[in-house]
Amino acid sequence: MATNPTLDLLMNRASVRAYTDRVPDDETLATLVRAGQQAPFAYQCCSVILQRKGPFAWQAPLRLLVCADLHRIGLIAARRGWRTRTNDLQLLLFAVQDAAYLAQNMVIAAESLGLGTCYIGSPLVTAAALRERCQLPPKVLPLVGLVLGYPAERPAPRPRYPLDFTLFEERYPELDEDAVAEAMRVMDEGFLAEDYYRKLGTMVAPEGREETLTVDDYSWTEHISRKLQWSPDPAPMLAGLRACGFDLAGAGEDA
Amino acid sequence: MATNPTLDLLMNRASVRAYTDRVPDDETLATLVRAGQQAPFAYQCCSVILQRKGPFAWQAPLRLLVCADLHRIGLIAARRGWRTRTNDLQLLLFAVQDAAYLAQNMVIAAESLGLGTCYIGSPLVTAAALRERCQLPPKVLPLVGLVLGYPAERPAPRPRYPLDFTLFEERYPELDEDAVAEAMRVMDEGFLAEDYYRKLGTMVAPEGREETLTVDDYSWTEHISRKLQWSPDPAPMLAGLRACGFDLAGAGEDA
Repeated sequence: MATNPTLDLLMNRASVRAYTDRVPDDETLATLVRAGQQAPFAYQCCSVILQRKGPFAWQAPLRLLVCADLHRIGLIAARRGWRTRTNDLQLLLFAVQDAAYLAQNMVIAAESLGLGTCYIGSPLVTAAALRERCQLPPKVLPLVGLVLGYPAERPAPRPRYPLDFTLFEERYPELDEDAVAEAMRVMDEGFLAEDYYRKLGTMVAPEGREETLTVDDYSWTEHISRKLQWSPDPAPMLAGLRACGFDLAGAGEDA
Repeated sequence: MATNPTLDLLMNRASVRAYTDRVPDDETLATLVRAGQQAPFAYQCCSVILQRKGPFAWQAPLRLLVCADLHRIGLIAARRGWRTRTNDLQLLLFAVQDAAYLAQNMVIAAESLGLGTCYIGSPLVTAAALRERCQLPPKVLPLVGLVLGYPAERPAPRPRYPLDFTLFEERYPELDEDAVAEAMRVMDEGFLAEDYYRKLGTMVAPEGREETLTVDDYSWTEHISRKLQWSPDPAPMLAGLRACGFDLAGAGEDA
């Protein structure tokens, strides 16, 4: 594998779940968001709400709420005498990309400045409430929270699937039992070696079943499998999206 | 603003739309995807198809097709005796984030190795056809293409909105006429200064109206506004998603 300081930074980064009390200063925060803005794919359909009033996950001192934002481009189009007609589904799936590319640039920028970060996925689930709290205009969807601060832990990088379980050439292969088993082994042994779930103090309950595992054998593949039992009904998320002005089955404004 | 080599790289990067014939070698490609995998938010619901058979946008020698991928986690859950029950909408919006964070890490890694990249948004629109061509299993959605290669141009970083048009504190403000006008000025003057649309050789036709602009005054805000007239009907994209196994209004498998 090739190596250089940027690759080292990308390869060695891990999410931080313990922070000191020190609050990043305004210049640092401005630097992060500017680096985020410079990400490509720039319809710039994303904005960031700096949240200072916690509590936030992992007792982080701050959270950046990253939003998919079609509001500002709508204002701009209106000033040019146009109305937005593209359907909401397409707008959303492109704006989510804008927002995620910006967010990931902020993660890298933060790492380069000695800050720790952790993505928090819940804003998408609590979108309607966040819309009220942050007074979001229509067509702005809270996508992901990025808590950040100065790390009080230095975790090693976490395991990932084998490369040949993620990178395929020309066609998606049939993944045989051995390939799946090897991917599971790498993930589970990696998290167990770090004592990850014991330190986290969380095991997801096995919905509708007796618990048969302990923190000595509960690991990543079981954790994710159990989470995949949650939220079978799309109605709450569809309602949150509608509250934020996105109707995924609806036609564009003038269609 | 703070500065360091990683921040310089993030701030100076620009999408490349002209490439040499040199094909990145396998070790380089493996390095990029490994760096991508190390991105956070890791349900790892994303995979990458290396495409060598062009032609690709901007005559790039290669394309990495980044997919939101719920197939592998489904195989793993099955091996653990679980079925995926989470609704497709939620799965998709989280998998798209996984995929985008991976993709953006690849962009940064490529830049650090002297490669140029450009995101191509069309795979989301042509998902059903790509599914056939790449033999994607159900629950794998082509999200974005990343063309890459060695740059035959060195564009300066492109303009972005003023920071105070993107970063807000606690609440989304009412954006007044002056703020919108200033954001438009920065974007339009920046792209005109680069002669961007003249070099690109493209102006989007003004749907249903007479053309009143030339490459001397056509710029970013008009370009985006005109694109926002496209695709008022969500049916084609909904059909593409369904072809790839995602029913956004449907309940989870066992709901």
